[in-house]
Amino acid sequence: MTDQKAHENKITPRAEDYSEWYLDIIKAADLADYSPVKGCMIIKPYGYALWERVQSVLDKRFKEYGVQNAYFPLLIPERLLKREAQHVEGFAPEIAVVTHAGGQKLEEPLVVRPTSETIMYEVFKDWIHSYRDLPLLINQWCNVVRWEMKTKPFLRTTEFLWQEGHTVHKDFDGAEADARKMIKTYEWFLQEYFAIPVVMGMKTENEKFAGALHTYTCEAMMQDGKALQMCTAHNLGDNFAKAFDIKFLDENSEWKFGWQTSWGLTTRTIGGMVMTHSDDKGLVVPPKMASIHVVIVPIIPKPEARADIEKVAMELSRTLGDGVLVHLDTRDIRHGEKYFEWEKKGVPLRIEIGPKDIEKNSVVLVRRDTGEKQFVENSNLASAVKDTLDAIQKNLFDRALAMRTENTVTVDSWNDFTEALENKKFIMAHWDGTSETEKKIKEETGATIRCIPMGNKKEEGKCVKTGKPSTQRVLFAKSH
Amino acid sequence: MTDQKAHENKITPRAEDYSEWYLDIIKAADLADYSPVKGCMIIKPYGYALWERVQSVLDKRFKEYGVQNAYFPLLIPERLLKREAQHVEGFAPEIAVVTHAGGQKLEEPLVVRPTSETIMYEVFKDWIHSYRDLPLLINQWCNVVRWEMKTKPFLRTTEFLWQEGHTVHKDFDGAEADARKMIKTYEWFLQEYFAIPVVMGMKTENEKFAGALHTYTCEAMMQDGKALQMCTAHNLGDNFAKAFDIKFLDENSEWKFGWQTSWGLTTRTIGGMVMTHSDDKGLVVPPKMASIHVVIVPIIPKPEARADIEKVAMELSRTLGDGVLVHLDTRDIRHGEKYFEWEKKGVPLRIEIGPKDIEKNSVVLVRRDTGEKQFVENSNLASAVKDTLDAIQKNLFDRALAMRTENTVTVDSWNDFTEALENKKFIMAHWDGTSETEKKIKEETGATIRCIPMGNKKEEGKCVKTGKPSTQRVLFAKSH
Repeated sequence: MTDQKAHENKITPRAEDYSEWYLDIIKAADLADYSPVKGCMIIKPYGYALWERVQSVLDKRFKEYGVQNAYFPLLIPERLLKREAQHVEGFAPEIAVVTHAGGQKLEEPLVVRPTSETIMYEVFKDWIHSYRDLPLLINQWCNVVRWEMKTKPFLRTTEFLWQEGHTVHKDFDGAEADARKMIKTYEWFLQEYFAIPVVMGMKTENEKFAGALHTYTCEAMMQDGKALQMCTAHNLGDNFAKAFDIKFLDENSEWKFGWQTSWGLTTRTIGGMVMTHSDDKGLVVPPKMASIHVVIVPIIPKPEARADIEKVAMELSRTLGDGVLVHLDTRDIRHGEKYFEWEKKGVPLRIEIGPKDIEKNSVVLVRRDTGEKQFVENSNLASAVKDTLDAIQKNLFDRALAMRTENTVTVDSWNDFTEALENKKFIMAHWDGTSETEKKIKEETGATIRCIPMGNKKEEGKCVKTGKPSTQRVLFAKSH
Repeated sequence: MTDQKAHENKITPRAEDYSEWYLDIIKAADLADYSPVKGCMIIKPYGYALWERVQSVLDKRFKEYGVQNAYFPLLIPERLLKREAQHVEGFAPEIAVVTHAGGQKLEEPLVVRPTSETIMYEVFKDWIHSYRDLPLLINQWCNVVRWEMKTKPFLRTTEFLWQEGHTVHKDFDGAEADARKMIKTYEWFLQEYFAIPVVMGMKTENEKFAGALHTYTCEAMMQDGKALQMCTAHNLGDNFAKAFDIKFLDENSEWKFGWQTSWGLTTRTIGGMVMTHSDDKGLVVPPKMASIHVVIVPIIPKPEARADIEKVAMELSRTLGDGVLVHLDTRDIRHGEKYFEWEKKGVPLRIEIGPKDIEKNSVVLVRRDTGEKQFVENSNLASAVKDTLDAIQKNLFDRALAMRTENTVTVDSWNDFTEALENKKFIMAHWDGTSETEKKIKEETGATIRCIPMGNKKEEGKCVKTGKPSTQRVLFAKSH
C-alpha cells in the first residue's frame, strides 16, 4: 500500500462497530491483506514480524525443555485420519482434500493436515520401543488448513500458521504434567509478551479436543467482552496410542501403551493482541512484541534544516542501546502524517525532534498507549526510553486486567446470568456438570463454558440453569 | 529409533552402490524417515536442525538486504496459475489439486502451491503504485508440493521446504542485479557454510525456470560425478508483470511495468551436503552447519569410576567456549558403540576421556573427516577444538574442490565427450548455442548443460556435437 492510500484508511470507532473496527485496524496497521482464496489471508511483513517474535520466544523456551523440532508431511492419507474415531468425527467437516495429483486421480484421497496427530503417531510407533525412548518431545512449526465458513483475519482463517507439540510419556501422570506445563508456558508467554491476561483452565467434555482426555486452555477477554481461546494443550491419554499402536517395553519388560499430549498456539494470538490493546486511533503493540520500539520523527520547518536535524536524530538513535529497535523516518512527507501513520501501526514510542529541541538538547517522547508526552534531555534519553517501554508493557497488561476484572461477575440466578450476558460480561456461575445443561445454555444464550479455571476453589452451590447441586463455579462467556 | 536398532544400520559402500549408500546414510544418521505418503519424507530432529541452521544464516543475510518476510496462502486458484502461459505449462504436470473441502465439491479447484509467483503477484499489483514503492523485497519460508515420480529423501520429494524470495524493480537492470546478487549470496552460503564448492552460472533456454528471462544456478559435483542443482535465482523480466498487471508510476508520472525476480533454496541442499562430504562410515557434517560440534565420550573401565570421569568430562565441556556446541554422552553403553554412532551422525569432533587421560590432564581429540587423533592437554583444549573445527571446515571444502577439479575435463571431440561422460566427469565443451543441439545431446547421452559459467572466458571454437561455431565453453554433466 502506498503512503497515500494508507493515509486514507479510516478506522471505524469500536463503539460504533467492533467487528468493522477490528478489520479496519488490520488494514490500517498493514498487518494482513485479503487473498484471492476464500478465507485465506496474506500475512504482510509488519504482521509477520509479530509471528517471528512468537516463534523466537517460544522456540527458545521449548528447546530449553528438551523439545526437538521436526517436520511431517502436509498431506495425510484419509485412512490415517479415520484411525481415531472421535478425532475424525471432530475434523471431518473441516477438511480439504487433494483428489488429483500429477495429472491423475489419486487412488486414495489425501487430506491437507488440519492438525498432525495421525501422521505423526503413525511413525511414532516406530520411534518408540523402550521406556528409555521416553519422553519423546517433538514440535513442528507449520501451516494447517481447516475449512471454516465464517472467517476473519488472524482470528479464524482457512489456513493458519501454528506450532504443534506432540509428546509421548510412560504414564498418565507424565502426560498430565506435560499438558499442564505447556499450558502454563503459554500463560507465561501470553501475559509476559503479548500483555494479555488469561484465565487458564480445563475445557468441558463438550468443548475439549476431538480425541483428548483433557483439554487445557488460556481464555482472554477482548474489548467487546467476548472470550478468545488463545491456545490449548491436550492430555490425549492413551486414546491415540491404542489407535496407532504406540507401545514400549517398560522397566519390567512389559509392553505398555504410551500416554500422549499435544499443544498448539497459532497466528490467532496476533488477532487477540489486536483486539486486547488497540484503540480507535489504531493498533497498539506491546513493546516486548514490537518489531519497532521507537520511531524518530524529525520536525523540519524548512528544507535547508533537514540535513542538520536528521543528523542529530541519527546520532540520538545510536544512543538508545542494543535491545531497542529504532526506526528513523526520513521520508519527505509532513511530520503530522508520520505521527498519524505510526500511531496506526502501534509503535510504542515516538520521539519528536525539531530545531527548538535541538537548541535545548532535548526531545519530546510520546507514548502510544496513553498519548502522554514527556520532554526528555538527550543525556537521559536512553534510560527514559527503556523505562517508558517497561511502563507501557506493564500498563497494557494492567489495563486489560482491570477491564476484565471490572467485567467479570459472579451470578447465582438465571435472570442475572442472561442480564450479565447482555452486558457482555465474563460470568462465574455454578453448573451441574452435565453436557446436556451446557448445551441447553449455549442454545438459549450463545454462551459456552470457556473453562473450569485452574486452582478454582471448591464451593457448594446450585446450577444457575437447573438448580441441581454443583461443587464449583465455571467461566461462561460468549466467544469469538 | 532405539540405540540397538541404530546399531544394526549397515552402510552400503559408495563404490558398491552410490544410491543405496545415500539412503543408508540418511537412515543411519537419523536425518529423515519415510512417511505413509508416497514421495513425502519426515524430517527428523537431527535433520531438521540442519534446516534451522540454513534458515538462521540466510534469514539474517536477507534481512540485512532489506528483504521482508511475509506469508501467502498455500492454496492457489487454478485460474491464477494459468495466467502466465509458460509458467503453467512448466508446472501443470506436477501439481496436486484440492477439489473438495468442507464436505463439498469446490467451484474452482485449488492448487497446492508448487511455487508462489502467481498468488503473490496477484496482490503485488495492489501493493505497488509508485516508483517510491520499489524495490519491493519479499521472502517466505514455507512448504511446497510438486508431484514427482521418482523421489529420494531431501534430493527430490513431493513436498519440500524452501525459502522463496520475490522482488519487483523499476527496470531490467534492477531485476538483473538482484538476481545476480542473490545467486552470489547462495554461492557464499553454500561454500562458506555447507563447504560445497559450486559452479555459478546461467541456465540455457531449455533448462531455465518456466516464465523466466534468465535463470542463474549454483551447480555442485557429487561424489558420483553427477551434478546437483543447489538453488536458483531468476530474472523474470516483465513477463509476470504483464500477466498480472503490476505497474507503477515512474519519476515522470508514466505507467511502467515492474521487473521481477524470484530465488529459492530448498531442503535439497541438505541432500547435497550428505552426498558431498559423507563417507562409508556415515555422515560428515561441516562444523559451520553442525548442531553438535563436539561429542565427549567418557571411557569407563569399571562402574565405580563413572562418577569421577563424567565429572571431569562435564568440567571440560564447560571450558570450550560459547560458540562450541558440545554433547556429553553419558549413556550406559560401551564407548565403542558411542564412537560408532557419532561417526555415523557426522559430528565433526570426538573427545575421548578415560582414567589415563585424567591422570595426564589431557584428552584424545578425534577428527571425523580424517580420523586423525591428537593428544591435547586440557589447558590447550579450547583453542585446539576451535582450530580443529576451522581446519575441518576448510578441509571439507578443499577436498570437495580437489575432487571436482580432478574430475572436470575440457574436451573438443564427440568421442572424448562420450568417454568423459562414461568416466563421470564434468565436461567443459563448446556448444553451438541452439536448444536443438542441447536436446540431441541429452537424448543421446543423458547429459545436460548445467550452466554457462559466470565470468566464463570467451573462446572461439566448434560445437562438440555439430561442429558449428561457438564463442565459449559450457558445463555439461549428468545430474541428479
